[in-house]
Amino acid sequence: MFESAELGHTIDKETWRREVPLLREALLDAQYDLLQKAEFPVIILVSGVDGAGKGETVNILNEWMDPRHIQTHAVGDPTDEERERPPMWRYWRLLPPKGKIGVFFRSWYSGPISAMLHGTARGPELDQQMERIVRFERMLADEGALILKFWLHLSKESQRKRLKSLERDPATRWRVTERDWRNFKIYDRFRGVAEHTLRQTSTAEAPWIIIEGTDPHYRYLAVGRAVLQAVRSRLDAGEPRAATAIVPPVIPRIDALSVLNRLDLSQKIAKKSYERELEKYQGKLNLLTRHKDFGKMSVVIVFEGFDAAGKGGAIRRITGALDARFYRVVPTAAPTEEERAQPYLWRFWRHIPRRGHFAVFDRSWYGRVLVERVEGFCSGADWQRAYGEITDFEEQLVRNRTLVIKFWLHISKDEQLRRFKEREQVSFKRYKITPEDWRNREKWEEYEAAVCDMIDRTSTEIAPWILVESDDKQFARIKVLKTVCERVEAAL
Amino acid sequence: MFESAELGHTIDKETWRREVPLLREALLDAQYDLLQKAEFPVIILVSGVDGAGKGETVNILNEWMDPRHIQTHAVGDPTDEERERPPMWRYWRLLPPKGKIGVFFRSWYSGPISAMLHGTARGPELDQQMERIVRFERMLADEGALILKFWLHLSKESQRKRLKSLERDPATRWRVTERDWRNFKIYDRFRGVAEHTLRQTSTAEAPWIIIEGTDPHYRYLAVGRAVLQAVRSRLDAGEPRAATAIVPPVIPRIDALSVLNRLDLSQKIAKKSYERELEKYQGKLNLLTRHKDFGKMSVVIVFEGFDAAGKGGAIRRITGALDARFYRVVPTAAPTEEERAQPYLWRFWRHIPRRGHFAVFDRSWYGRVLVERVEGFCSGADWQRAYGEITDFEEQLVRNRTLVIKFWLHISKDEQLRRFKEREQVSFKRYKITPEDWRNREKWEEYEAAVCDMIDRTSTEIAPWILVESDDKQFARIKVLKTVCERVEAAL
Repeated sequence: MFESAELGHTIDKETWRREVPLLREALLDAQYDLLQKAEFPVIILVSGVDGAGKGETVNILNEWMDPRHIQTHAVGDPTDEERERPPMWRYWRLLPPKGKIGVFFRSWYSGPISAMLHGTARGPELDQQMERIVRFERMLADEGALILKFWLHLSKESQRKRLKSLERDPATRWRVTERDWRNFKIYDRFRGVAEHTLRQTSTAEAPWIIIEGTDPHYRYLAVGRAVLQAVRSRLDAGEPRAATAIVPPVIPRIDALSVLNRLDLSQKIAKKSYERELEKYQGKLNLLTRHKDFGKMSVVIVFEGFDAAGKGGAIRRITGALDARFYRVVPTAAPTEEERAQPYLWRFWRHIPRRGHFAVFDRSWYGRVLVERVEGFCSGADWQRAYGEITDFEEQLVRNRTLVIKFWLHISKDEQLRRFKEREQVSFKRYKITPEDWRNREKWEEYEAAVCDMIDRTSTEIAPWILVESDDKQFARIKVLKTVCERVEAAL
Repeated sequence: MFESAELGHTIDKETWRREVPLLREALLDAQYDLLQKAEFPVIILVSGVDGAGKGETVNILNEWMDPRHIQTHAVGDPTDEERERPPMWRYWRLLPPKGKIGVFFRSWYSGPISAMLHGTARGPELDQQMERIVRFERMLADEGALILKFWLHLSKESQRKRLKSLERDPATRWRVTERDWRNFKIYDRFRGVAEHTLRQTSTAEAPWIIIEGTDPHYRYLAVGRAVLQAVRSRLDAGEPRAATAIVPPVIPRIDALSVLNRLDLSQKIAKKSYERELEKYQGKLNLLTRHKDFGKMSVVIVFEGFDAAGKGGAIRRITGALDARFYRVVPTAAPTEEERAQPYLWRFWRHIPRRGHFAVFDRSWYGRVLVERVEGFCSGADWQRAYGEITDFEEQLVRNRTLVIKFWLHISKDEQLRRFKEREQVSFKRYKITPEDWRNREKWEEYEAAVCDMIDRTSTEIAPWILVESDDKQFARIKVLKTVCERVEAAL
């Protein structure tokens, strides 16, 4: 795997002098086009052997291009805000928006490589981590990102020489730390780990580019040209998304039976029982959140449902039981400009709560497989792949001790009509009803099909969908509260 | 001060039943209009005596209005990301955008009140803190925010009764903590502190609204109506900014002498000395950033200057000396949608670095008193008040051990012309020159006047402007690097 990067590549001074101005000009042109079009972000990872010139390479990219539109991130130890979220949260925060270049000097590979090197994680676990990285990068690529992963390599002898020569020069001595020499001692193991990692994570959409790091000029030209070639060909190729468009497979519907129409929507609760139960479960929920271990977990609650299904009312019955300090209701509206410049899930990652906190989503990331699918706001390929991306996302939450509770509040078409009419009459509910609600109603059956697919594809053992019969609002609220109590209790 | 809030206000059941639906409807209407117009944010602080129902009042606001557009923040202990920035950073993060309501359950008053109560800060220091709060709120108000500060009051006897009654009811017992009883013991001191605080911070733009907290119905109606009245009258008043427009006083120019034309732009450095000095100061800067105490401070560097003054080149000479892990170049472009929905300084607060880090701003918050002033992008009142807001901002940075280094790179009009022409010819510099650059050049004198005012008004002892003679790029770069070294060294 590293054979071509141990050949002793060098660039003579003349070639260097001739090539650099040309490359620099072309890179700047490409960067400027990238910025103007703002169609995709460029994500550059710079990894490799100590002393292979990772830092210098990052600096030269900043020097050759316009550094104002390059964001360099050298991710260190996680902050406490980061530690309380899934490990990938910190990288989501740092993703470059469309049109910009993000350079990651340490990246999502640092953790797994270090764990492998120091034996703190076992084989199957590491393979899982690699697989998650592959899926993450595929998602980024599907969202349009151009991903360039550089591995700067040095043979063992080159590494030794390089460290020695850096040490000899007073101007560069500071660059060599004890850690570098410690790492040098485990060169062979590191090489094995690197090879394993690179092999497992070199994918069609994001292959590793291995570059010999011995000669700085060779290294810079090689990295610079690879960046240029990739950005330029992507810019010239125009809209790249069409290539990934696939015909979504349809799950055949043989009979009228579905998870939705099987629900008994006639279920009711008497007013008195409702009040008793409401008090009981609100009190219980409150007690649970004051449990000493609650601070070690967090809760994400998702509400989906047709218009007027009672999402807002159910949410208020939950928040009414909680201390305002510990919850946040996140309404999902049209994405902002900053959100539109990022991968789809970015705007939800923003709101992932810290330990001891609730985030209640009024509509959510499921919009992609519901409204965006039905209304054609995204391509078939986009919503098809969303199922997998969403379950990956939720799996990360659950692994981080975040409880994921998902409610589908289901009402009948007749009940919706009754509520729409009521809303138009009761003055303080008027704001809740818009022409769009009436339009959505016309596509009831299409939405139902999308809901059934959603449940089939994303109801997992770790984050199951809870279908809530909601023709009776009170019944629905109690079921929601009771479920939240049970799930939190089980998690503690 | 609390006299009217100790009269025993109550609301009878009938009034409550009659009033609530009306109030609720009006509040929702107002909230909806607020959201639609998205002209200003509403900032509500809920403070007061323990047991006066702060949490319940926040909940009722969430219940009466649409909770999806209310952001409730109960700020707890700062996270490590927050601790490494000025104390106000955490509140800037949480400010509601235009059209939304932000409720602060604990606020910027918590710290000072607690310090006063427990005697951890002395009188003059506290007065300073209050004065800073007043200035912060005035800035928010000037930026268009509607600020409502509620103080829920209880007489000593009412507080005792309230805590007792909460304790008696099993459903509410959990609300009373040991801390509440401890606080009850120092009721009198607390009352004194509160009175002092409220008096000092009740301003025309953000007065405290004191409400008796004994009877929940009275308390809810009073708060609800105050919110309604304030939001509604502000909505109906239309564009509020005109009222604050003032005629900016002009500093008379008697002769041609200015801080700019006094500069000796003919200063040069020979190529050889340049290279020697560059290496020297880059090495020195690098060493300084590896000093053991550097991790306790942070550095903000601001670059301003006419187009083609050499900001980018100077920035690269600084970043070239630094480890990519520890710096970030922040280009100041047109604000994004999320940034436009916030006070002017919000988008700079976002980029305030953590300890041990550099943030280098390529253009900055000074845009308001330069380009926005000259091009008329903001009103005279806006840029006039910006001087004070900016020095307040920088003072907060400095108090937080953030070194603020501000460079004005000055070039002559002739030199700019020469560089513009060169940029048009050298192909990889073409991206640097736009028609806007030529347009700005036509207003050279107006910009010069704005620069002189800026220097006069914002060059402070703690954050002075450094004027850099930049007709010779090399000379400028060395002066910049040398200054950065000296300032960092002095701060360590």
